[in-house]
Amino acid sequence: MAEKVIIAVDACGGDNAPGVVLEGVGQALSQDPDLEVLLCGLPSVVEPFAASHDRCQAHPASQVIEMGEHPAEAVKEKKDSSIVVGCKLVKEGRAQGFFSAGSTGACLVSATLNIGRIKGVKRPALGIILPGARKETFFLDVGANADVKLDYILQFAQMGCVYASSVMGVENPKVGLLNIGEEDTKGSLFAQDAFRLLRDELPQFAGNCEGGDLLNGGFDVVVTDGFTGNVALKCVEGTSKMLFTLLKQVFMSSTASKLGAMLLKGSLKDLKRKVSPDTYGGSPLLGIDGVCMVGHGSSNATAVCNGILSGCREVRAHVGDKISAMVGAPGREVA
Amino acid sequence: MAEKVIIAVDACGGDNAPGVVLEGVGQALSQDPDLEVLLCGLPSVVEPFAASHDRCQAHPASQVIEMGEHPAEAVKEKKDSSIVVGCKLVKEGRAQGFFSAGSTGACLVSATLNIGRIKGVKRPALGIILPGARKETFFLDVGANADVKLDYILQFAQMGCVYASSVMGVENPKVGLLNIGEEDTKGSLFAQDAFRLLRDELPQFAGNCEGGDLLNGGFDVVVTDGFTGNVALKCVEGTSKMLFTLLKQVFMSSTASKLGAMLLKGSLKDLKRKVSPDTYGGSPLLGIDGVCMVGHGSSNATAVCNGILSGCREVRAHVGDKISAMVGAPGREVA
Repeated sequence: MAEKVIIAVDACGGDNAPGVVLEGVGQALSQDPDLEVLLCGLPSVVEPFAASHDRCQAHPASQVIEMGEHPAEAVKEKKDSSIVVGCKLVKEGRAQGFFSAGSTGACLVSATLNIGRIKGVKRPALGIILPGARKETFFLDVGANADVKLDYILQFAQMGCVYASSVMGVENPKVGLLNIGEEDTKGSLFAQDAFRLLRDELPQFAGNCEGGDLLNGGFDVVVTDGFTGNVALKCVEGTSKMLFTLLKQVFMSSTASKLGAMLLKGSLKDLKRKVSPDTYGGSPLLGIDGVCMVGHGSSNATAVCNGILSGCREVRAHVGDKISAMVGAPGREVA
Repeated sequence: MAEKVIIAVDACGGDNAPGVVLEGVGQALSQDPDLEVLLCGLPSVVEPFAASHDRCQAHPASQVIEMGEHPAEAVKEKKDSSIVVGCKLVKEGRAQGFFSAGSTGACLVSATLNIGRIKGVKRPALGIILPGARKETFFLDVGANADVKLDYILQFAQMGCVYASSVMGVENPKVGLLNIGEEDTKGSLFAQDAFRLLRDELPQFAGNCEGGDLLNGGFDVVVTDGFTGNVALKCVEGTSKMLFTLLKQVFMSSTASKLGAMLLKGSLKDLKRKVSPDTYGGSPLLGIDGVCMVGHGSSNATAVCNGILSGCREVRAHVGDKISAMVGAPGREVA
């Protein structure tokens, strides 16, 4: 039997909330018998669902933070929103993790303010598991910190190592620094300084990683600032989306191609699943004193389910404790 | 009849030089009857080719700058290299443009040192035409300047407008700033400052462009610093490469899929051509006092041919004169 885990879930976050969120919660509850969900959101949404599901408690919240709202202002003003209520359940120790497919910005602000950082962590970082032709890569920061200092980058790399080794099961993760050339002397002045710091302080550091190598599995963890990381992630997602759109056009272009596409249907679906962000369903916000998973706004039920289950894995892997042990210890002793 | 154009070509640059370069030069000469090529490189390479082709002159160079060499040192030391010889032909007015598929870094350094910048241009920028599902986008800087100042960004945007309108034929190009959110207040402090500057000084400015929107044709020109731009470009290329690799695996996975792939072969080739960097064959280095096109190291003959022809188009469009007129004029009077 797995360790019991309690996750607070924002029932009202995401483009397709609450429908797909509730469906995803239902799937997660049935896939993980040791999961308990605290469902946060409008009473009319969370109460009937909790009443009809085992291991699910309703935590009414009278407000919803919308996607377009200014994150910091919304979190400050909407103290009874599902995002704030969910984070507070983690802070109070009533849940070990929080999942939302709502506003990423509001989740970052609320997690930082209402749950707080792990002692010693300078800034939390948002990570994501990228698919690859050979293997997966953990990539951070993908948007929590648009402006970073040098020492944040080292901590991001350390937190990435913890996640890769304890959640993704990578032994001795190889860490790369996202840069615009492979050689030591390449890149912006900041990237050059970051290279030297990582080389000197992080035993797992293995060199620079170019944008084109992000998906080819040469590194287990790739680290960058939240501006470059967000641009890079969106470029990967955007290119993939464009190519699938163009492929669809190719498939519909003639009778022969329609037939060809029919024969490929099953394997193409597998491919699409492989590269889809729904497979993990969320980005872990590392460095927060509790698990916090942020899902894509466009999450479907599978993504929500997988996001919640990824949160459970992070809780069971004791990622927070390991990060805490690491940032307190000198760089060279990182596990 | 089109205007006569003389392009100096580095015969020894690129992973597959000189074979594919010579083949590409041959194709370009036969496609453009008003093109003349000054072929720079080892005498044993350039002399026999020039002797057997009309409108092609040999310009022997005794040295070759290899891909792995330090750009600035190589350009300084190898004064009789094909890259330096080619740029000097432009400086002396004997050629109007230079094309090389060799070391991008060495081309940037040599073009800046040996040809020089247009008066008023603070830094040259490397641009690229990105394919898209709906239409193309001109994207810069993709790597000439890892560290930039605010006023460089404005000039990059202005030079991008000139290229898009005069070479790509876009009327009233819409300019976007690569950023990590659409709203005015999003992004790093630098990106926020750049947003305000572009909004105030560039009539063509239309707002922030997220990484995911780079390929969807919402903007005609997207501007960023050379670090972010290079990462973004490599991510787009890397994702495309990974997906085609995975597609190939899908196609070979069963008898049915092999048959399906056969039926799709022709249209998939069209798709691959559409998103291939070979279609334009090179990145224009804007802001240099003469045309300079840098090809991919892995260029094939088609890419070399298209790179040379893109250079001709830039010469005939008088891009340099237009940039010169623009940087001398106040921001609001940009064409």
